[in-house]
Amino acid sequence: MPLLVMKFGGTSVATLDRIRRAAKRVGREVANGYDVIVIVSAMSGKTNELVGWVNETSPFYDAREYDAVVSSGENVTAGLMALTLQEMDIPARSWQGWQVPLKTTSAHGAARIEEIPTENMMGRFEAGMKVAVVAGFQGISPEGRITTLGRGGSDTTAVAFAAAFGAERCDIYTDVDGVYTTDPRITSKARKLDRIAFEEMLELASLGAKVLQTRSVELAMRYQVKLRVLSSFGESDDQAGTLVCAEEDIMESNVVAGVAYSRDEAKMTLISVADRPGIAAAIFGPLAEGGVNVDMIVQNISEEGRTDMTFSCPVDQVKRAERAMTEARSRGEIEFADLVADTEVAKVSVVGIGMRSHAGVAAQMFKSLRDENINIKVITTSEIKISVLIDRKYMELAVQALHDVFGLDKAA
Amino acid sequence: MPLLVMKFGGTSVATLDRIRRAAKRVGREVANGYDVIVIVSAMSGKTNELVGWVNETSPFYDAREYDAVVSSGENVTAGLMALTLQEMDIPARSWQGWQVPLKTTSAHGAARIEEIPTENMMGRFEAGMKVAVVAGFQGISPEGRITTLGRGGSDTTAVAFAAAFGAERCDIYTDVDGVYTTDPRITSKARKLDRIAFEEMLELASLGAKVLQTRSVELAMRYQVKLRVLSSFGESDDQAGTLVCAEEDIMESNVVAGVAYSRDEAKMTLISVADRPGIAAAIFGPLAEGGVNVDMIVQNISEEGRTDMTFSCPVDQVKRAERAMTEARSRGEIEFADLVADTEVAKVSVVGIGMRSHAGVAAQMFKSLRDENINIKVITTSEIKISVLIDRKYMELAVQALHDVFGLDKAA
Repeated sequence: MPLLVMKFGGTSVATLDRIRRAAKRVGREVANGYDVIVIVSAMSGKTNELVGWVNETSPFYDAREYDAVVSSGENVTAGLMALTLQEMDIPARSWQGWQVPLKTTSAHGAARIEEIPTENMMGRFEAGMKVAVVAGFQGISPEGRITTLGRGGSDTTAVAFAAAFGAERCDIYTDVDGVYTTDPRITSKARKLDRIAFEEMLELASLGAKVLQTRSVELAMRYQVKLRVLSSFGESDDQAGTLVCAEEDIMESNVVAGVAYSRDEAKMTLISVADRPGIAAAIFGPLAEGGVNVDMIVQNISEEGRTDMTFSCPVDQVKRAERAMTEARSRGEIEFADLVADTEVAKVSVVGIGMRSHAGVAAQMFKSLRDENINIKVITTSEIKISVLIDRKYMELAVQALHDVFGLDKAA
Repeated sequence: MPLLVMKFGGTSVATLDRIRRAAKRVGREVANGYDVIVIVSAMSGKTNELVGWVNETSPFYDAREYDAVVSSGENVTAGLMALTLQEMDIPARSWQGWQVPLKTTSAHGAARIEEIPTENMMGRFEAGMKVAVVAGFQGISPEGRITTLGRGGSDTTAVAFAAAFGAERCDIYTDVDGVYTTDPRITSKARKLDRIAFEEMLELASLGAKVLQTRSVELAMRYQVKLRVLSSFGESDDQAGTLVCAEEDIMESNVVAGVAYSRDEAKMTLISVADRPGIAAAIFGPLAEGGVNVDMIVQNISEEGRTDMTFSCPVDQVKRAERAMTEARSRGEIEFADLVADTEVAKVSVVGIGMRSHAGVAAQMFKSLRDENINIKVITTSEIKISVLIDRKYMELAVQALHDVFGLDKAA
């Protein structure tokens, strides 16, 4: 029997009525002849409530207890989904992570999946069960404690099940109807993509397009799981969403697939750092230990043995970065004249696998920004991405200009 | 190290602040030199919310999924309690039922505890853990599914842990400060008992005094667990509550320990039933199968081979009883002229182990009711209990009169 994985996010199971609507979608796939593994998130808001309680109880909490508490929301929706399917005369049962058992590392709060045994569940399918409902986001550590996979972890649960069971496809039902060329709130010309390559989706996810958890895309890429993002709110049944797939499954594509942005960035510059071997490690080691997620890094040309070192990080980590650098200086590990923070910047990126074979994308991007009189503060590039840091007030303008210049409103 | 079990009910863990107050009580026992097993209920209202969702989703629900859903509230409070204790620098961790594992039968929704292995948890205590926090109400079936023990089941969890670990005492923290001679809402003369015998508590619990789940008292009696009921809201620390204990641990006691009542009873009479061997089975078999909880039974003296059969049941089961009897008649299993229901009755009972050695309690009770002009409709007695069915409108009057006549406002 062919098998599908269907994942429903928090807004798709937020009420009993929405659970019923989700169950109807599952029922249609069962009627189409599929066995289905359904992965559910907690009702929207529930996990935040539980996280809030943990933080209020214990600011520096024991992550094992955090996991025990915050995983409970998914248990509720898994049971309710199974009951809803049973009411529709579809043989179904729920599994909690430890019952599968979905085995993970002991990295509580951000555990990685190690193994999903399939025999037990496959036996149930063979015995006539049509739907296995699995509580997403959770697993069990080698020590027998409950673990969670990090925010958005139910996406990763879904892809991992699809990989383990060789599912035909993994459908992620969410509150958007697919992946867009850019945020539709910034330009009405944003267009839903029919297909996007894993690599592109990875860059977009890590750039803050909150459609899929980054790790779920990595996993799908590694195991070549066909991943589809679609809305659980659309009325029509044959809404196609966006298929995230291997590059070779995309016949034609624009050079640039999408324009992403990250609004709340900060640019920090260490002035007059001694330009010596090991200086980068002396700076970025303490920043990492201090919990600062450094993104872009630029080192200026050295003059007389001194250089300026610029990096970017989320704007709410500026205080931590300042403390980490000040402490490193007082320990004698680094020297610098000043630390200057620009907290009014944003990052804009263009992403596309087509860049690999098309030269001139960077030149076109910089020209387009120059035409809008937008000053570029920092540039970084990867094989399929070009990112720039600009003044935050120009962010929307830049996104719109780049969306136009790369013709993203038109299909390839 | 001596060991205590402390159980906190839903109102005692209803908010983070109340969890902190409960944790402080635990901390004081730790300071007194005890290892402590804490059993927690769900935050008050949570289990009802979950039960409501299940009922709305699936009126004739799969009890296995019901258990998976409704057990989740206790997981939240167990984790939060462990975190709160850790914040107080008390080494603590949480256990969910399946982690202990608290092994139960497969009777989902009303499972019975079969075994509580102690090695794992004892090893933790020996390694320096001071408090084990256990999610109440839940266990695991031989099939590996989550089970629940029925409403109030956390009391039973607590007593079972006390028995398994040979705890010095099992303290049940609740929203009342002990067991009373009768409901203080009915007479202000009601007095808190310092001690009550297991047998008396059992009768009171089954009569509707909702302080403890009946099964927890049975279990405490069987394993001679000293059970204390006390308030988690009192300001003073040395509030003693009520100790539920073996008869021999009670030096002096009143003949009657308490007056209990059950308001919503119905009296049903089958008129002119054939008085033949097996007629009781023919009547009460179908009633039990029909889900009617028959309480008192009285058979009138037979005349000319016909008799009247009277029984009582909760008033909301009258329709079921009528249907069961009508169907049994139509199947030819019983004959009767009429079925008369009196839905305006209540049950009042006096309970006390002293009755075993004191004659005349029944006579004194009947005289007292006669003096108030209260007509007795049905009488049943056990070794330590006398119950009467009376018109509901006289219920409060009867409780007050009996409380007076047996001198319950004064200690023995």
